[in-house]
Amino acid sequence: MRPRALFFDVFGTCVDWRTPVIRECEALGLRGVDWAAFADAWRGRYQPQLETVRSGRRAWTRLDVLHREALDSILGDFGLDGVSAERRDQLNLVWHRLDPWPDTVAGLARLKSRYVVAPCSNGHIALMVDLARHAGLPWDVILGAEIARAYKPAPEVYLASVDALGLTPREVMMVAAHPSDLAAAAECGLATAFVPRPAEHGPRGAAEPAPGREYDLVAADFGELARVLDV
Amino acid sequence: MRPRALFFDVFGTCVDWRTPVIRECEALGLRGVDWAAFADAWRGRYQPQLETVRSGRRAWTRLDVLHREALDSILGDFGLDGVSAERRDQLNLVWHRLDPWPDTVAGLARLKSRYVVAPCSNGHIALMVDLARHAGLPWDVILGAEIARAYKPAPEVYLASVDALGLTPREVMMVAAHPSDLAAAAECGLATAFVPRPAEHGPRGAAEPAPGREYDLVAADFGELARVLDV
Repeated sequence: MRPRALFFDVFGTCVDWRTPVIRECEALGLRGVDWAAFADAWRGRYQPQLETVRSGRRAWTRLDVLHREALDSILGDFGLDGVSAERRDQLNLVWHRLDPWPDTVAGLARLKSRYVVAPCSNGHIALMVDLARHAGLPWDVILGAEIARAYKPAPEVYLASVDALGLTPREVMMVAAHPSDLAAAAECGLATAFVPRPAEHGPRGAAEPAPGREYDLVAADFGELARVLDV
Repeated sequence: MRPRALFFDVFGTCVDWRTPVIRECEALGLRGVDWAAFADAWRGRYQPQLETVRSGRRAWTRLDVLHREALDSILGDFGLDGVSAERRDQLNLVWHRLDPWPDTVAGLARLKSRYVVAPCSNGHIALMVDLARHAGLPWDVILGAEIARAYKPAPEVYLASVDALGLTPREVMMVAAHPSDLAAAAECGLATAFVPRPAEHGPRGAAEPAPGREYDLVAADFGELARVLDV
């Protein structure tokens, strides 16, 4: 069965977060810091932070706040406590201005000609709006964590997003570079497409494991995804 | 102060609902019906229906359901009880495929080059997605009634939409053809732009009253709005 809508993971799947974070950190002009390690450490706080919300220990909190708390913490770990609040505010918004992968924008535009395309991301609405305008992501609508006030892989994020379109889970395909995201979507009844992004964690980063037969589709990039989905 | 985002009323302001409703009713092939009167009667049920939700007498209910209940009721009033459920389902979706006013699409595209543009409509998300794809409305994000689970002019619709963008009310301008919508937005602290749509209610329909000095801007169409807003 052909889907009617495609949901996309964003960080890592549609955009490269690591290169822009390193670039903007380097632009701070501070010497002797391993900014690649800094970027990885910043991102490394992400899942533990989300878990504080997923577990119910913390009320729904937008990603800007979590990113800023992580940034404050990492700056301390790297001996950079002297960075001003104003520069921290500015740097924290790097997550609103990440770079699309080379195939992302053209692939989404093709897919949009036939399917409703929407992010189903843990990024909140304001972040997704800025990122779409910065990177040229032609979304039909912004769905995901904020409309459910929960974080993936909690099932309500996928299910609230499907419900907002008036569709059933089987009418929607989740597209992601991360097996855990796809496994959770499949558990909710969505179709799944795996698009590996081996560069997400940098030249020496560990790639996600190669897929088995657990996905409805596997495509090398969004161009191949469009071909496989007949657009 | 210049706004950072523009919110748009949709039915009547961005799109002509009356002409497409009449056209699709005529396509039913039933003779001897005054379809213009039928369209006006269908739309006439709109505010009383919304009031059942606004007053708390009824839980949040999407517009498709309200439109369908109104359709069933009006068909009866016009002696058309014989129209099948399947044709009613199909006709009810006419509200998902309305026509933009001639200046709407080009005006929105210009405005989007500088401002975040979003519907702040009583239409639910699925309806707004279909309408945007049908009419070519280039929204950045879909806001409005469904994210607040309330109907305009309830203040929470405007305020939840502003909050979703991480902005303050004064950073957002509401654009509408209806003084009541703009008065409610202004009460919430939003800036306002009045764009009259004298053809909304047809050649013999009553136009909205001419504006006084109660709006921040008045523009004849979205092209003039773009010029006034320097894009």
